[in-house]
Amino acid sequence: MKTVYNFSAGPAVLPKEVLQEAANEMLDYKGSQMSVMEMSHRSKVYEGILNEAKADLKELLSIPDNYKILFLQGGASTQFAMIPMNLMKNHEADYIVTGQWAKKAAQEGQLYGKANVIASSEDKTFSYIPDLDNLAFSKNADYVYICENNTIYGTKYSTLPDTKGIPLISDISSCFLSEPMDVTKYGMLFGGAQKNIGPAGVTIAIIREDLLGDEVFEGTPTMLRYDTHVKADSLYNTPPAYGIYICGLVFKWIKSQGGLEGMKKMNEEKAGILYDFLDSSHMFKGTARKQDRSLMNVCFITGDEKLDKKFVEEAKEEGFENLKGHRSVGGMRASIYNAMPKEGVEALIKFMKKFEEENL
Amino acid sequence: MKTVYNFSAGPAVLPKEVLQEAANEMLDYKGSQMSVMEMSHRSKVYEGILNEAKADLKELLSIPDNYKILFLQGGASTQFAMIPMNLMKNHEADYIVTGQWAKKAAQEGQLYGKANVIASSEDKTFSYIPDLDNLAFSKNADYVYICENNTIYGTKYSTLPDTKGIPLISDISSCFLSEPMDVTKYGMLFGGAQKNIGPAGVTIAIIREDLLGDEVFEGTPTMLRYDTHVKADSLYNTPPAYGIYICGLVFKWIKSQGGLEGMKKMNEEKAGILYDFLDSSHMFKGTARKQDRSLMNVCFITGDEKLDKKFVEEAKEEGFENLKGHRSVGGMRASIYNAMPKEGVEALIKFMKKFEEENL
Repeated sequence: MKTVYNFSAGPAVLPKEVLQEAANEMLDYKGSQMSVMEMSHRSKVYEGILNEAKADLKELLSIPDNYKILFLQGGASTQFAMIPMNLMKNHEADYIVTGQWAKKAAQEGQLYGKANVIASSEDKTFSYIPDLDNLAFSKNADYVYICENNTIYGTKYSTLPDTKGIPLISDISSCFLSEPMDVTKYGMLFGGAQKNIGPAGVTIAIIREDLLGDEVFEGTPTMLRYDTHVKADSLYNTPPAYGIYICGLVFKWIKSQGGLEGMKKMNEEKAGILYDFLDSSHMFKGTARKQDRSLMNVCFITGDEKLDKKFVEEAKEEGFENLKGHRSVGGMRASIYNAMPKEGVEALIKFMKKFEEENL
Repeated sequence: MKTVYNFSAGPAVLPKEVLQEAANEMLDYKGSQMSVMEMSHRSKVYEGILNEAKADLKELLSIPDNYKILFLQGGASTQFAMIPMNLMKNHEADYIVTGQWAKKAAQEGQLYGKANVIASSEDKTFSYIPDLDNLAFSKNADYVYICENNTIYGTKYSTLPDTKGIPLISDISSCFLSEPMDVTKYGMLFGGAQKNIGPAGVTIAIIREDLLGDEVFEGTPTMLRYDTHVKADSLYNTPPAYGIYICGLVFKWIKSQGGLEGMKKMNEEKAGILYDFLDSSHMFKGTARKQDRSLMNVCFITGDEKLDKKFVEEAKEEGFENLKGHRSVGGMRASIYNAMPKEGVEALIKFMKKFEEENL
């Protein structure tokens, strides 16, 4: 039987060891004779799972004590509203638009005040990160918003904008825990779990506590107030408990792989060999500007749509799944998150070489 | 080793067969070499899982074509806001308050208009369903809201209020799929999955399509608009895909048990023997008014708090988990959802008899 490698942009590949442990514990979590899925979220055993996940995440990212860690629902799309509803106190914020998701966040922001687009790379299909040295921040901006890794276009911020003290809010859905980061540079970080961390349905937000307050946009639902979840320590209502348990297993797996330094090393190796191949290929070409390349999502084209289609089809037959680019940009995309083994990338390159020989 | 029976009010016991299948398929869903957790929500195989779950639910509840089925996130607590934000067109609605959850729904409704409490059973700790024959509905009420099964107090509506054409909205979280129901009597039904259907993190809403429209409360987040999810067929953003897969397995299990008629028969048997025992006991006493008793949540006390505590502790030692009543009411509660086998209830009764003999 052929080996399947799953290059999906999310939901995405998870560590085999984590899935194996989840399978083993499905009917009996540590002798409880219960599945984690069946456990009261108010039980001691589940509280232990939640607190351990939180502590491991805190350790992995070196999250300082003045940041709150929240496990939420609704995906990044819900954060697009929660952020302005809770944090746009002056009804104004700045957005750097580097793709569809940052654009959607800015559009949602317009429902609650002035969401200024202070830079954009839409002119070149979001294939680069705009110049960060000459940004003009708005005087009343409550925050500056970025999407740090752009899944659809394969770009990532290599440095952060200097926001002159304005809180920086970053969507890190597709680069979450892929390398070390300095949390103190942000007012808030958030991301959906379904790319690098766990199953869809869990959203993690990390917020500096001085940004939290009672004042919210009129009509903000109780469930969409950060203070609701802070006060209740992510147990205001029933959390997506099983998903959080899987996230916790992934955190432990990352720790076993050398933490975020270990992840970075592996991710640089994997992306490195794939980008090196793209740069030397006579058929395939990377689409993101070199200095802005993502370690997680590698986008490429042949320059011929028919050939792209043929490649995706033949790759699928060989067990390379989900290589089709996002429907809005076409081409190909290999998402090589933490859990994608190096052998998967090596096998893909081997197949690409063969395809190139056969079709050039 | 003792057998554990889990009487948790939610997240709650799931069918062993479902958990076994989930465990078997965890690393390889039907030969895909992928876990359902790892699958793109835009892939054919996942679309199949979602559509099959929807079709099975439609069949089980005989949902007419003019009702939309949505798989959402955020729990019933998020519905408390979504309902008025989307459906309170005249900024007024009527609420019947039969417990903490209906009360919270009414309080949340106040954020968006006049949420009139037209009946309440709070005077007697929500131990009964108010008289439904003499309700005075408000002239401009956009809907009448009820919580059909009250998990904390063990009560359930045995009949529905005649709302004279005003759409009836019902929270059925804790009686979802426990017996047949006539969907056409409702404008909208909704519930969290984590009691009778699947893991926490999935919320199912069934809405009559004529109630849907473009007009929503100002500042309603895109993710909290029903029309967003209707237009995208529950795929506007990444859904809680693994949870929906488990729900689908539970729907198939219910079908294999004779559908909702089969469930009703089993649930009446289980609740019947437990209530019969309570009615004949010299120590234990049911707390809900007899004609309003729930088939799902059986609440009882000894009349002596110390004895209650002793009972819960000794029961736990014997493998009867989560029998403690909700922290707001005390006493005991046995939640006996669809997946609780009759043997579990029989074993509990046997233990209660023994405890009664030893402690009376």
